[in-house]
Amino acid sequence: MREGIGMEQRRIGEVAVIFCSTRTTADAAGYDAAARIMDALAAVQPGYRGIDSARGADGAGITISYWANEAAAIGWRDHPDHAAIRERGRAVWYDDYRVTICTVARAYGWTRP
Amino acid sequence: MREGIGMEQRRIGEVAVIFCSTRTTADAAGYDAAARIMDALAAVQPGYRGIDSARGADGAGITISYWANEAAAIGWRDHPDHAAIRERGRAVWYDDYRVTICTVARAYGWTRP
Repeated sequence: MREGIGMEQRRIGEVAVIFCSTRTTADAAGYDAAARIMDALAAVQPGYRGIDSARGADGAGITISYWANEAAAIGWRDHPDHAAIRERGRAVWYDDYRVTICTVARAYGWTRP
Repeated sequence: MREGIGMEQRRIGEVAVIFCSTRTTADAAGYDAAARIMDALAAVQPGYRGIDSARGADGAGITISYWANEAAAIGWRDHPDHAAIRERGRAVWYDDYRVTICTVARAYGWTRP
């Protein structure tokens, strides 16, 4: 499973790419394998800064990838392997998705003492 | 359950408040009730634009609230009922959380035809 929340606080000026999606019920194994491969591939791209991901039992999921700047985020969007897997996503795995590209303005966190 | 993904596309300049958290296993009923109340209260605040939320079985969750501008986001942060429930969150419901405040730069979506 790719779900997980990193503990690193985001930095001002980073680009957050919010991917909100609804999964179909099809091909869970194929989806999980592809998600793992994409996470690993994203992590070695220039300007990668982290990922947060959660998906509930109802199929609604949010994945946020963080990038040093807009160019890095666009580089990942246009990566050939990522583009190919997106085609598979539209064909099989997703009923719908929305992508929101944001710039980080402030960030803070809390951990149980 | 509060999980869900809205279908509305975000608009440029909106403020996205990303709340990434890890739940404790304590007081699930109290948490669910409070989350429902907070969602309903947020939705009637000035400048509210929507919410996306997902939480996996591992306790990792992401909730993103969207606001017309920074003033609206701060207004919700400082709402007395919201501040009170945050205290309860730190006391009981969360092991950790991070808040990232962003400005929306671009947005697009796809729905299965």
